[in-house]
Amino acid sequence: MKKVLILHGPNINLVGEREPGIYGKESFADINHEIEQWAQELGLSCEIYQSNSEGGLIDKLQEMRTECDGVVINAGAYTHYSYALRDAIASLVIPCVEVHFSNIHGRDEFRSKSVIAPVCVGQVSGFGKYSYRLAMLGLKPLL
Amino acid sequence: MKKVLILHGPNINLVGEREPGIYGKESFADINHEIEQWAQELGLSCEIYQSNSEGGLIDKLQEMRTECDGVVINAGAYTHYSYALRDAIASLVIPCVEVHFSNIHGRDEFRSKSVIAPVCVGQVSGFGKYSYRLAMLGLKPLL
Amino acid sequence: MKKVLILHGPNINLVGEREPGIYGKESFADINHEIEQWAQELGLSCEIYQSNSEGGLIDKLQEMRTECDGVVINAGAYTHYSYALRDAIASLVIPCVEVHFSNIHGRDEFRSKSVIAPVCVGQVSGFGKYSYRLAMLGLKPLL
Amino acid sequence: MKKVLILHGPNINLVGEREPGIYGKESFADINHEIEQWAQELGLSCEIYQSNSEGGLIDKLQEMRTECDGVVINAGAYTHYSYALRDAIASLVIPCVEVHFSNIHGRDEFRSKSVIAPVCVGQVSGFGKYSYRLAMLGLKPLL
Amino acid sequence: MKKVLILHGPNINLVGEREPGIYGKESFADINHEIEQWAQELGLSCEIYQSNSEGGLIDKLQEMRTECDGVVINAGAYTHYSYALRDAIASLVIPCVEVHFSNIHGRDEFRSKSVIAPVCVGQVSGFGKYSYRLAMLGLKPLL
Amino acid sequence: MKKVLILHGPNINLVGEREPGIYGKESFADINHEIEQWAQELGLSCEIYQSNSEGGLIDKLQEMRTECDGVVINAGAYTHYSYALRDAIASLVIPCVEVHFSNIHGRDEFRSKSVIAPVCVGQVSGFGKYSYRLAMLGLKPLL
Amino acid sequence: MKKVLILHGPNINLVGEREPGIYGKESFADINHEIEQWAQELGLSCEIYQSNSEGGLIDKLQEMRTECDGVVINAGAYTHYSYALRDAIASLVIPCVEVHFSNIHGRDEFRSKSVIAPVCVGQVSGFGKYSYRLAMLGLKPLL
Amino acid sequence: MKKVLILHGPNINLVGEREPGIYGKESFADINHEIEQWAQELGLSCEIYQSNSEGGLIDKLQEMRTECDGVVINAGAYTHYSYALRDAIASLVIPCVEVHFSNIHGRDEFRSKSVIAPVCVGQVSGFGKYSYRLAMLGLKPLL
Amino acid sequence: MKKVLILHGPNINLVGEREPGIYGKESFADINHEIEQWAQELGLSCEIYQSNSEGGLIDKLQEMRTECDGVVINAGAYTHYSYALRDAIASLVIPCVEVHFSNIHGRDEFRSKSVIAPVCVGQVSGFGKYSYRLAMLGLKPLL
Amino acid sequence: MKKVLILHGPNINLVGEREPGIYGKESFADINHEIEQWAQELGLSCEIYQSNSEGGLIDKLQEMRTECDGVVINAGAYTHYSYALRDAIASLVIPCVEVHFSNIHGRDEFRSKSVIAPVCVGQVSGFGKYSYRLAMLGLKPLL
Amino acid sequence: MKKVLILHGPNINLVGEREPGIYGKESFADINHEIEQWAQELGLSCEIYQSNSEGGLIDKLQEMRTECDGVVINAGAYTHYSYALRDAIASLVIPCVEVHFSNIHGRDEFRSKSVIAPVCVGQVSGFGKYSYRLAMLGLKPLL
Amino acid sequence: MKKVLILHGPNINLVGEREPGIYGKESFADINHEIEQWAQELGLSCEIYQSNSEGGLIDKLQEMRTECDGVVINAGAYTHYSYALRDAIASLVIPCVEVHFSNIHGRDEFRSKSVIAPVCVGQVSGFGKYSYRLAMLGLKPLL
Repeated sequence: MKKVLILHGPNINLVGEREPGIYGKESFADINHEIEQWAQELGLSCEIYQSNSEGGLIDKLQEMRTECDGVVINAGAYTHYSYALRDAIASLVIPCVEVHFSNIHGRDEFRSKSVIAPVCVGQVSGFGKYSYRLAMLGLKPLL
Repeated sequence: MKKVLILHGPNINLVGEREPGIYGKESFADINHEIEQWAQELGLSCEIYQSNSEGGLIDKLQEMRTECDGVVINAGAYTHYSYALRDAIASLVIPCVEVHFSNIHGRDEFRSKSVIAPVCVGQVSGFGKYSYRLAMLGLKPLL
Repeated sequence: MKKVLILHGPNINLVGEREPGIYGKESFADINHEIEQWAQELGLSCEIYQSNSEGGLIDKLQEMRTECDGVVINAGAYTHYSYALRDAIASLVIPCVEVHFSNIHGRDEFRSKSVIAPVCVGQVSGFGKYSYRLAMLGLKPLL
Repeated sequence: MKKVLILHGPNINLVGEREPGIYGKESFADINHEIEQWAQELGLSCEIYQSNSEGGLIDKLQEMRTECDGVVINAGAYTHYSYALRDAIASLVIPCVEVHFSNIHGRDEFRSKSVIAPVCVGQVSGFGKYSYRLAMLGLKPLL
Repeated sequence: MKKVLILHGPNINLVGEREPGIYGKESFADINHEIEQWAQELGLSCEIYQSNSEGGLIDKLQEMRTECDGVVINAGAYTHYSYALRDAIASLVIPCVEVHFSNIHGRDEFRSKSVIAPVCVGQVSGFGKYSYRLAMLGLKPLL
Repeated sequence: MKKVLILHGPNINLVGEREPGIYGKESFADINHEIEQWAQELGLSCEIYQSNSEGGLIDKLQEMRTECDGVVINAGAYTHYSYALRDAIASLVIPCVEVHFSNIHGRDEFRSKSVIAPVCVGQVSGFGKYSYRLAMLGLKPLL
Repeated sequence: MKKVLILHGPNINLVGEREPGIYGKESFADINHEIEQWAQELGLSCEIYQSNSEGGLIDKLQEMRTECDGVVINAGAYTHYSYALRDAIASLVIPCVEVHFSNIHGRDEFRSKSVIAPVCVGQVSGFGKYSYRLAMLGLKPLL
Repeated sequence: MKKVLILHGPNINLVGEREPGIYGKESFADINHEIEQWAQELGLSCEIYQSNSEGGLIDKLQEMRTECDGVVINAGAYTHYSYALRDAIASLVIPCVEVHFSNIHGRDEFRSKSVIAPVCVGQVSGFGKYSYRLAMLGLKPLL
Repeated sequence: MKKVLILHGPNINLVGEREPGIYGKESFADINHEIEQWAQELGLSCEIYQSNSEGGLIDKLQEMRTECDGVVINAGAYTHYSYALRDAIASLVIPCVEVHFSNIHGRDEFRSKSVIAPVCVGQVSGFGKYSYRLAMLGLKPLL
Repeated sequence: MKKVLILHGPNINLVGEREPGIYGKESFADINHEIEQWAQELGLSCEIYQSNSEGGLIDKLQEMRTECDGVVINAGAYTHYSYALRDAIASLVIPCVEVHFSNIHGRDEFRSKSVIAPVCVGQVSGFGKYSYRLAMLGLKPLL
Repeated sequence: MKKVLILHGPNINLVGEREPGIYGKESFADINHEIEQWAQELGLSCEIYQSNSEGGLIDKLQEMRTECDGVVINAGAYTHYSYALRDAIASLVIPCVEVHFSNIHGRDEFRSKSVIAPVCVGQVSGFGKYSYRLAMLGLKPLL
Repeated sequence: MKKVLILHGPNINLVGEREPGIYGKESFADINHEIEQWAQELGLSCEIYQSNSEGGLIDKLQEMRTECDGVVINAGAYTHYSYALRDAIASLVIPCVEVHFSNIHGRDEFRSKSVIAPVCVGQVSGFGKYSYRLAMLGLKPLL
């Protein structure tokens, strides 16, 4: 069974509490539960990890680089400036998909640029929690 | 049964012939056939239309604005500068999802900017023909 | 009797349906009817044409270059990037006035730049349908 | 009877003497006389004021904010950088229309940007002295 | 007793009338009265001056350069482009503090840049009328 | 016998009528006649096509992609922003040469950038109608 | 009694040792002691926390979001690029004030931009340790 | 006898008091006295005027446009942004020379740009009070 | 017989040795020999000169300004920044054509800008050694 | 014996595994072993530390600021945006040298800018593992 | 007797022949003769040198650095990009004045920037040949 | 024995005389002598050449391209704009290392960009004369 790392970046754990107009009202725990179910439906196992720390996210990516078959990452605000995270993704030999709850291209100017996009195979944004589901579905044939 | 307009922009009809390293080898007809099947599996009907003309794409969007329930658009290179297409999408009351075969964020500089993104609900890029499938799947709960 | 070409660009035909907060609720047909009446009051005849196509607008301008005495153009979103339309206007020997329903200088950044302005004699923006009336009034002494 | 403030900015008083190729040969007094007549024809009263001083223009706008029903302003070169004038206009509850003798979009690069445009209801430029007439005509239904 | 010049720039006198959502509803006279009281509480005397004119503000600064011990300035929109005001402040040997009612860094793009900041000892913004109080408090040990 | 597609973009058909100081006084028909003769002298057949429409030019390029051996294109103002045309050229396997009547590098700023140049084998500009002749001569050894 | 979180970012703990010309000679412990006393004088309790880690600062903000009534943050160099910290502040429902020892607008170019300013209620900079005092004073009426 | 207007802009009257490292220690009165003597030596009469007000400088230029034969202007900080002053100079038919005490090209970035330079016949900068002398000498043959 | 100066800039003499993928394998001497033959076929005499020195190229242009009837210049990398060379070309009364072996618009960003283009009559690029032939052919009717 | 801190930033620990075409195939442990030997040969002791965390690197620098005599830092991707790291280095009184395996000036655009360079004494880049050796050699006379 | 080096840059020797509308009709030899006379009148000796070569100008400056007391330089187009010339001037301990025949601030955009200005004591531009005279006059008290 | 070309660019010969605070007090001859000794210690022969001329440096590089095994270049100010020198280095098949006395990244803005860096194998800057020694040491294994 293929294993996918679901990596949540800074402040993603506040979903449900933070700006519900943009991010919805479901709690982080509930969404993670759904992600696990979607993974199961797709015949995938998944490991979910969240960190507010750039270094913590890189540590996790390095640790999992030989232990999983693909990555779905919502890098939160690090999306827009963390070249260190980009290097960590670029060093993977497994495919990585970038997701966002909201359509990052339709908000603040600074959110329209992703420095990790060039090293990801694809991007899904704007579908709320379903972005993760679509990402796993898109990732599956690449594993 | 909900109906989705699948709108292909300039040069998309050359898929299979043009830069197969980026866009794959399957023909345009074959991909459209698959799109129709995916729509059916999702319980959706779909109408597929391609034009190399900016005006032609806008005409189609205007004509279908009351006849379909959602739009999946791959605007090709118009993605990067057609503010007229953007206005046409903005005038819709039905949701529109932007798709791309390749990850537009990882190629030429000019391809990383989408002028239609701010008026679409979401974006799926980088999964080849599967981008359309993911887009319809993400679009369905919004119809 | 002097004849004026009234040229409407992309999505202008949706006026009344599209973003009524910005463009008002009157239909395109009604507005064109009023434009014809204003022309008559000014002792002018007018021909009204709309196209969503950049090429279509240029074709019309070329066709009418010897058949009318002045042009009032609302180029819609083409205003902001159609250098081809600009060249078509620049090749006219009759005067051309640029109009906009809304004040283009007070909306999105990209709307504050007009590439056709340098080849028009003047610009009227922000007065809704009345922009066309003012434009014809301003154009009349130049015919 | 509605009252309109006609506000002329720096160097506008030199019209007729300065760069006649661009601004025409009629004197400032003559043009003001015509503006008064046009106002009368439209059933409006008007007060005309000119100052070369940014502060003087703001003082006048503040003084007249409860004594007139609308403003027509030709801010001259202050158009391009006076954020103080912009704030003064933004603080009005009556409508303000921006005018220019020449088409500011077709001259020096720095003249194509208006910092007051976003707080005016509309703009008329390029019709010489007639720009004021068109502006009053466009302003009338908003008073 | 140390004396502080409180300098209000363009449109500050409209506080209470202008955009009350941003600037509050208290009148200019009332706020000046409070400023005087706060000064008194801090053991300071103060002179308050407002002008809409860039030159007027510079004249005042020059006149007071040997007659007061410190300056609190709210330069209004001149904050963003008046290099002449900047030079006037730079020529002082007494300390100058910059204040703003609103948080200028969180509004229009052009408001986020202060050309006088580099020649002021500090900046207080976003606390409404209290910005003046904090500024005097911060200024006191520097007199 | 090798066949070359001569593709004329927007407003090129006005040559002889439009800005004769820049483009000369010979008519479009006469120039096309000369182009045919030059082709013949070089032992080439040629098909000539003009359109004001971006989509029309792309349609023609797609239609001719297997029916001719090389392309000479004067994309007019589309040269400066039509990424869609660029993609159409990039999808060709036959060589394409870019031509311009005038030296585009010595006129308006926006004319100095060609978005199609990176996908053309070469560029000839500034020799009036002779640019087409030089282009065919340069293209011939590459067919 | 209202509680305020005093959050010190990277290298702030070196105050007294680092660039004393800019930051003064008092030690970090001494300054924190004074901050506590000022809080007490204002009838506030305070918790002080320092971290060199972006993630550590975000963790603290998330942990305290329901346990304190306001925040005073000196984000050090993270001020200039940490959009993740910005998101963490934006997700708070309690007010946050930004402080700086030195006048950030008068030093290196990169220091004049604060990415957290748009989500803070106000900013105090340039008063050394007193910036914290002024910030608490300004914050108090908002708690 | 030819008459020259010597126009001093904002803060120039502080010379001798302000930043003596850059502007020298001689008083404004003394320098004006010397300027008068240099004029006399050149067989010129001169009128000297200083204002901190942009409008005041423009008023003076307009008033003197038919009463003097040339202008020497040190526009102080207005040099860098006063397009209104530029328009006033452009409207003169007599020659105007720009002077600066210090070499404006070797100081702050914003000082290296002069918006009035394109409408002056020449520029002299960096020679302290002697800049005025050189300017009058250079102006003389043009009167 | 008309005489043409063929001017080769820096590193052009390394053709055949340097980056043969871009510049081909033929030697500099061989190419010059061919250029001479092409000139002869066109009924022109030619003088060929190469220098790695900006000053050397300018010296040659000055020396030949009255001794030849036209110039074909491949300025190598000086194309992109030598305003001195531009001035030398601008001072000629004979026509000058710019050539490049490779299509400079399709390589590094810095190569897409030519500072000499605005003062040349035309440009030919991308045809290898044949660029010189086309240039002479295009130049001939202008001599 | 002088002591040098060797500080490795994010993803440096992946050397040998990550993009071997750029970074070589030797393992991180092997390279550190060599660095220790080179230090010994130079009569230096060294402490080696790696962290993926920006805060972790700053913590280490602060901890070692009085315990070592010099620093050699390869800040990985933090090189390009970590102003916090820059501040930490700036606060050192011992010299710091910046190193990179690859020539950062010859890769992606974003890698050509180092925000820590202005506070380091020197930079060595492009010599693979030997960059560290050269850095220690260059650092030695400065200890 | 003080000695001044008069250094003429590229194409200055063409004065009289090149663009006489801008540079006048007097020959280079005649102007140099006048310069020598003006120097004599000022009690100065002068050495005049012209080169089209950047290196040649630097060589001359280095050679004369101990043999003359001041420099007047018209660097021609090198003014705008020769940082090497700037370094050569910066290494002088004698004063250097920059001159230009025409007002460089009022012509092409690229001519408004001088990279040597920051290392010169002053600049004189726009007075034709008299610029040299004014420069020597301004230089004299600094020798 | 491998041979290295040591190439010194403009003004490097003034080391010891020019800005000793930045470049040190040792003479050019002394430093060259040391470079020769360091080469000898490394078992290398070296040829040292200096020129102020861009063309002279290119000539030398071309002449030595088959006569030495590696290059160490300090291109002085040409580093920042000489694309011609870049092309000359790019045409070499032997490795080239870039050196600088001072840390170019920590001085004027224009010095932080090296146009030759992308075609050099590595860069050493900031170690004064020792930069050359480190460069030769780094170059040796690549010969």
